Amino acid sequence: MKKLPVAVLGATGIVGQHLVSLLENHPWFEIAALCASPANAGRRYAEAVQGRWRPPRPLPSSAARQTLRECTPPLDAGIVFSALDSSVAGPIEESFARSGCLVCSNAANHRMRRDVPLVVPEVNREHLSLLEKQGYGGGGIVTNPNCSTIGVALAIAPLHQKFGARKVVITTLQAISGAGYPGLPALDIIDNVIPHIRREEEKIETETLKILGLPEIGADIAVSAQCNRVPVSTGHLLNIAVELEARAAVEDVAREFEEFNPLGDLGLPSAPARPLLLLRDPDRPQPARDRDNGGGMAVSIGRLRQDRVLDFRFVALVNNLIRGAAGAALLNAELACLGARKSM
Amino acid sequence: MKKLPVAVLGATGIVGQHLVSLLENHPWFEIAALCASPANAGRRYAEAVQGRWRPPRPLPSSAARQTLRECTPPLDAGIVFSALDSSVAGPIEESFARSGCLVCSNAANHRMRRDVPLVVPEVNREHLSLLEKQGYGGGGIVTNPNCSTIGVALAIAPLHQKFGARKVVITTLQAISGAGYPGLPALDIIDNVIPHIRREEEKIETETLKILGLPEIGADIAVSAQCNRVPVSTGHLLNIAVELEARAAVEDVAREFEEFNPLGDLGLPSAPARPLLLLRDPDRPQPARDRDNGGGMAVSIGRLRQDRVLDFRFVALVNNLIRGAAGAALLNAELACLGARKSM
Amino acid sequence: MKKLPVAVLGATGIVGQHLVSLLENHPWFEIAALCASPANAGRRYAEAVQGRWRPPRPLPSSAARQTLRECTPPLDAGIVFSALDSSVAGPIEESFARSGCLVCSNAANHRMRRDVPLVVPEVNREHLSLLEKQGYGGGGIVTNPNCSTIGVALAIAPLHQKFGARKVVITTLQAISGAGYPGLPALDIIDNVIPHIRREEEKIETETLKILGLPEIGADIAVSAQCNRVPVSTGHLLNIAVELEARAAVEDVAREFEEFNPLGDLGLPSAPARPLLLLRDPDRPQPARDRDNGGGMAVSIGRLRQDRVLDFRFVALVNNLIRGAAGAALLNAELACLGARKSM
Amino acid sequence: MKKLPVAVLGATGIVGQHLVSLLENHPWFEIAALCASPANAGRRYAEAVQGRWRPPRPLPSSAARQTLRECTPPLDAGIVFSALDSSVAGPIEESFARSGCLVCSNAANHRMRRDVPLVVPEVNREHLSLLEKQGYGGGGIVTNPNCSTIGVALAIAPLHQKFGARKVVITTLQAISGAGYPGLPALDIIDNVIPHIRREEEKIETETLKILGLPEIGADIAVSAQCNRVPVSTGHLLNIAVELEARAAVEDVAREFEEFNPLGDLGLPSAPARPLLLLRDPDRPQPARDRDNGGGMAVSIGRLRQDRVLDFRFVALVNNLIRGAAGAALLNAELACLGARKSM
Repeated sequence: MKKLPVAVLGATGIVGQHLVSLLENHPWFEIAALCASPANAGRRYAEAVQGRWRPPRPLPSSAARQTLRECTPPLDAGIVFSALDSSVAGPIEESFARSGCLVCSNAANHRMRRDVPLVVPEVNREHLSLLEKQGYGGGGIVTNPNCSTIGVALAIAPLHQKFGARKVVITTLQAISGAGYPGLPALDIIDNVIPHIRREEEKIETETLKILGLPEIGADIAVSAQCNRVPVSTGHLLNIAVELEARAAVEDVAREFEEFNPLGDLGLPSAPARPLLLLRDPDRPQPARDRDNGGGMAVSIGRLRQDRVLDFRFVALVNNLIRGAAGAALLNAELACLGARKSM
Repeated sequence: MKKLPVAVLGATGIVGQHLVSLLENHPWFEIAALCASPANAGRRYAEAVQGRWRPPRPLPSSAARQTLRECTPPLDAGIVFSALDSSVAGPIEESFARSGCLVCSNAANHRMRRDVPLVVPEVNREHLSLLEKQGYGGGGIVTNPNCSTIGVALAIAPLHQKFGARKVVITTLQAISGAGYPGLPALDIIDNVIPHIRREEEKIETETLKILGLPEIGADIAVSAQCNRVPVSTGHLLNIAVELEARAAVEDVAREFEEFNPLGDLGLPSAPARPLLLLRDPDRPQPARDRDNGGGMAVSIGRLRQDRVLDFRFVALVNNLIRGAAGAALLNAELACLGARKSM
Repeated sequence: MKKLPVAVLGATGIVGQHLVSLLENHPWFEIAALCASPANAGRRYAEAVQGRWRPPRPLPSSAARQTLRECTPPLDAGIVFSALDSSVAGPIEESFARSGCLVCSNAANHRMRRDVPLVVPEVNREHLSLLEKQGYGGGGIVTNPNCSTIGVALAIAPLHQKFGARKVVITTLQAISGAGYPGLPALDIIDNVIPHIRREEEKIETETLKILGLPEIGADIAVSAQCNRVPVSTGHLLNIAVELEARAAVEDVAREFEEFNPLGDLGLPSAPARPLLLLRDPDRPQPARDRDNGGGMAVSIGRLRQDRVLDFRFVALVNNLIRGAAGAALLNAELACLGARKSM
Repeated sequence: MKKLPVAVLGATGIVGQHLVSLLENHPWFEIAALCASPANAGRRYAEAVQGRWRPPRPLPSSAARQTLRECTPPLDAGIVFSALDSSVAGPIEESFARSGCLVCSNAANHRMRRDVPLVVPEVNREHLSLLEKQGYGGGGIVTNPNCSTIGVALAIAPLHQKFGARKVVITTLQAISGAGYPGLPALDIIDNVIPHIRREEEKIETETLKILGLPEIGADIAVSAQCNRVPVSTGHLLNIAVELEARAAVEDVAREFEEFNPLGDLGLPSAPARPLLLLRDPDRPQPARDRDNGGGMAVSIGRLRQDRVLDFRFVALVNNLIRGAAGAALLNAELACLGARKSM
């Protein structure tokens, strides 16, 4: 089957680089265009990321040779991945949607729009149907959540589906790569913690509800988040306490985590074998050791136990660059293409 | 007024060193004996801590010259500070109590004993009266809490006294110095977080209740803790969510924090001007910037706001070596001496 | 004696903040004006450094209240400290010199000018006489060296004076605060070393010669530097190998380090008791433990030994913010005022 | 061709774990036995490394199932890799050599013995002939150098062969994993550098000469090393200055680095495509970005330039766990088997 041409907007940033890396040898997609700011347009991709390439695998040679283009339609691509900064992403993404592309966006701009699906494929793939209401003609915008929220949503979803979640208290310990590049000054975070990330708590509290299909106001679930930045390169650790509607034992919760696999038979190339890994070691998950579980697409869970205040506490780790950003947008694109591919 | 002779048990460890440092030029106390393990007994103190001295101020020359003794009574000291490891502290502390000393202990061994006061002077100084029930004759044991617990107790106490605390959900980000020396291997914590500290959560959950004068079973307050170790040298950051019995606005809570000063007029040398500092910057407190507030004896509080699940969330920072250990034992000793000094 | 009014240019940056901190309660000087970029001019100093104050001691309340001014003469100050960025320092410093001020500059712009003294008071205070050749009227410019160079110059000077230095091979391990704020992105330096600091090696190689009174071309001393950035907050560690003209034993070199104290009787307030501290522990000096030796004004030396290639190797540690920047400019000002004060 | 059965001594340590990881799917070798201390013997390998597995790839399932044995011959293995600690390695390695095994050792114990080859395959593979002089019968001991030395030897070898090396001045910035596990306490290295590693400088200075085939006393080359421990997990950075006998331009030196490939056609499975990678970016190599170059088997070189004191300076990075330890022993084993395999 012929590969679908795709484009990456914001290809020189950290998330854009990870998209380029994940798209190397992708079975369904191939990169037709890499786009960046006007300042970088016209340069070779290899030159633009010279000395700044972050993904663990080397810069793919095919991408290295590409000449960067401006973020303006039309591009010869049916799917456009947006790793743009939210300061510019809004109108650019709309212009590509209007030009007929499916925009798979990692930016926050359109996430909370009523007609824009905010999708975690394992949780709410039916929300993709919102695309039909967007009025962009053949194009559309689908978004993935904030890099912390996606970990919360994946961990809470099976519990909510089975037992009904009522209250969720989250404390995050987030990696510095979540702030992009250059991001945090080293002087601010060496031997330090910063107990605040701008607008992050609000995103977790509102995006989680939308993903779970709940109204922001009047939802049965209350979500509270406190975010901290810690001196860790990659991997957001989420400390979660949850109160459930139905009674459940620890083993019941463990089973829901372990058996959660709603994409099991769909064959999406970027879906991990299991989206949730329940670790039994008493001191896991840890960012340095578990961030690459499932190729960075699995959320690792540990320290599950009953709680004295709410019902259960546990810790979840999400790779903020893969499952929390580049891999999330890619999985959304794969999901959106599934129907089209089956009919071919 | 003549200074009281005191001894330090476990003087070569991190907490012991900080006690030695804090006792330099203390207006009430002077060091009569420094004690350590049999392996170190007989060595000069300067030699035993050679290359391992941790406090920010230099090793006091008077302490440097002292010859280390074994941890065996009698010593010519009315007050004995115990910075011993919990693996040996229990019987040693008892032997000193029996010999007529007041043992001010930082170790966990006797903290939860019914007849042993677990004291934070600003919170429950009346618990000192338990000393009379110990049956050690003129001696006794008074303990200070675990290095995280003391931050929780100080932050919750004014809210509990005014509004009644009902539920407290705590997530800690704790510094590596809390594990003593050698403590954590560098390989385990560089670029990493460990979401578990052995027996720490249990200590926070039980000690807090005892300090607040509540029974562990049947208390009106439920306390839940999740502890994380982060790559920070000193300063435990506590993320706290609290539910109160009475209604309160954010300003009411802020006022209780700011006006909390129950030791105000007692003249204890190690008491900070204010035990709680409410910071208004949106990204404070931070370990690197706030751990020395109030000479390491003040707990810094920030990010106070209403919460969607419980009533309020805030962040508190406690210097685990000073207010959480050496300074806590010292303040307890000062409190215990207060009556005696006044009668002189 | 009445205190001299002084001004600080670039008062909001890291070096400027340290100058403000060091000037608190200075016996000779008092702050008459704090100056910053036009964007900050008109704001209260406390407001401008809100949340960004770096020195270990709290922001002095007298400085906190000052209103920031633009970096334009005239100011009511005889001495002007320049902590300006080199992108703007050049002409501003000249304008103040022309207006009759003595500019004590930490910036690189004028350091290598033939008529500008580059002074380390313990090494080449006689170079101050260059001030008379500058033609600025009553004003002038005196500079202190780069934050690494000053450590090299202080360590090499006594050896050069006694034995004649021939070859100096330097490898630096430099702290991130040397790059100012925001400086290095955290993502670039966490769990990493960067073996390059822009223009730093050249500065060490040329400034050292000028301080030692040698021509850059044709000097008898060859100096070679390789600079590395390491994940340390403050304290530049210098690994130095040196070849001497005269024969010397290790004890001879040690004695020169220990007896070096050319400012001994001058009474400069910021001069440390001894500029060089020779440490005997085999694993010292270390940034975390020795950066504050001598109030940050002493250079700590260790690991002195004979070498298989050159004559001796040793390690020197310089506090890049104090002795390497703010304290260096302040000591130069004190030196320059010495004559004036004596005649008063 | 049937795979050779091999054993790993010290399989639970960091280097042993990396050997187990590198041996997974090795085309020539298969693990017949994993050996550890008596305390661990009898346990499943998976259980013994539970929560302590360090290599980036997951624990191989075949190794996971193995039952650990004591480090005592006989084992059903022709090649025995020793990742033992030097406190026990000496006699154990000899016992295996006497039992007829080829011991490929990463331990320091026998490295400097006259009849034991200290081999870097690209540099001195002819030294393997020393095996015949050992008198162990069919068995023998071959060693690889210290984790820093191997980087020095690989970088200096091509220059020495072409131009003759005269003087080598080395300053290392070494990762904490070089000290094994538990290794350094986190409190000693967070925000710090330690300018000393016990016995490391001596190893670099003597082992390098032996590898280059030179006598320790009377060699034409003088080697000087100063070692520092830096807060980096993996990757030793070597700052090297070298003086050559013959004249050479920078391009000449660069060419020798780039064309150095003496194993080019031998087909050793663990040999990297090129042992030396010359990087042109001005701020490379960096541990975090270059430690995995060539699968961890390539030494990355950068910052090559002429020097003011010696002839050239450059920076080299060696992965201390792969090329500096596990991979070095493995490559030695492959080299030793080459003849045997060819005759098959």
